[in-house]
Amino acid sequence: MTGSEIERLIQLFAKLPGLGPRSARRAALYLLKRRETLLEPLAAALAEVGRHIRPCSRCANLDTTDPCAICADARREAGVLCVVEEVADLWALERANAFKGRYHVLGGTLSALDGVGPDELHIPKLVQRVKEEGIKEVILATNATVDGQTTAHYVADRLAPLGITVSRLAHGVPLGGELDYLDDGTLTAALKARRPA
Amino acid sequence: MTGSEIERLIQLFAKLPGLGPRSARRAALYLLKRRETLLEPLAAALAEVGRHIRPCSRCANLDTTDPCAICADARREAGVLCVVEEVADLWALERANAFKGRYHVLGGTLSALDGVGPDELHIPKLVQRVKEEGIKEVILATNATVDGQTTAHYVADRLAPLGITVSRLAHGVPLGGELDYLDDGTLTAALKARRPA
Repeated sequence: MTGSEIERLIQLFAKLPGLGPRSARRAALYLLKRRETLLEPLAAALAEVGRHIRPCSRCANLDTTDPCAICADARREAGVLCVVEEVADLWALERANAFKGRYHVLGGTLSALDGVGPDELHIPKLVQRVKEEGIKEVILATNATVDGQTTAHYVADRLAPLGITVSRLAHGVPLGGELDYLDDGTLTAALKARRPA
Repeated sequence: MTGSEIERLIQLFAKLPGLGPRSARRAALYLLKRRETLLEPLAAALAEVGRHIRPCSRCANLDTTDPCAICADARREAGVLCVVEEVADLWALERANAFKGRYHVLGGTLSALDGVGPDELHIPKLVQRVKEEGIKEVILATNATVDGQTTAHYVADRLAPLGITVSRLAHGVPLGGELDYLDDGTLTAALKARRPA
């Protein structure tokens, strides 16, 4: 059908999330027709990122510098850490542009089933940072799943002896959310956490 | 938020068909976490294809060799050409594995509106190939759209003086197609072209 190099490109594209064999072919063909404007810049960007990407030695964010751009940014509020499960969660919070402190990426959640204990995550590192960096508040922003909440509980327990403020994201009705479509757990949480109007 | 190199990678991914800003971020992060197994191979494959890709000087297929793998394949039936609009159509026919001859990619359709005339397409080249390569049959496999059919008509007229067989893809009910969901045009075509059971 096509040269083996093009075939290989399509196979690699098809491994990306959200791309199946069909859309991988479409993407590859789209690139082939735009060699100078898209294919070559994309190849260069990938090579460049591939050469430089590494986990930040402080917060485990992925970036092309170490410490990462956020840890290195002096305008960031010192003393506040936001603890997230994955880099994707950090990116989501950065997009919301609502948090001005720094992050700590755990690298997953505790899971007895998958044999993930505290030492597989960056929890000891978090405790160490809180002590060394003079952290005043830790915001636990793990996912609102069973594993995420279990992990948040555990981290809160580990931080308790240090006498700092440990807080969590609020649960409730998402903006634009319609009550009719929300699950019972969210409604219960939103009722419990009701506030004066 | 993230290093500018990662931002740039996400922006380039977001230009691919089927990927929006959100899925581009997901794809980029997926790659960042799989540097050796996916990011670097993909960067290398893109660079390799980018260096070698070119339109086949005979049939205008895109490949990393010239003539393309299909034109160069001696096992391909000589004397039969399948005329398609775009490389994507060639790929689709190759996947179906139903055609053993060679191709001729027009590079689009005639369009008065967009100012695309016969000389913008590879139509003169097709006439030349038919003469020089001793072609016996040309199968017109343009799309079943107004522009595609107009183009097929025009090509058929241009080939008429050469005294070769010129055929077209059959129209009808697609395999697995339910009559209730088909458009009137397809049903009319299928009725007209009915065959003994």
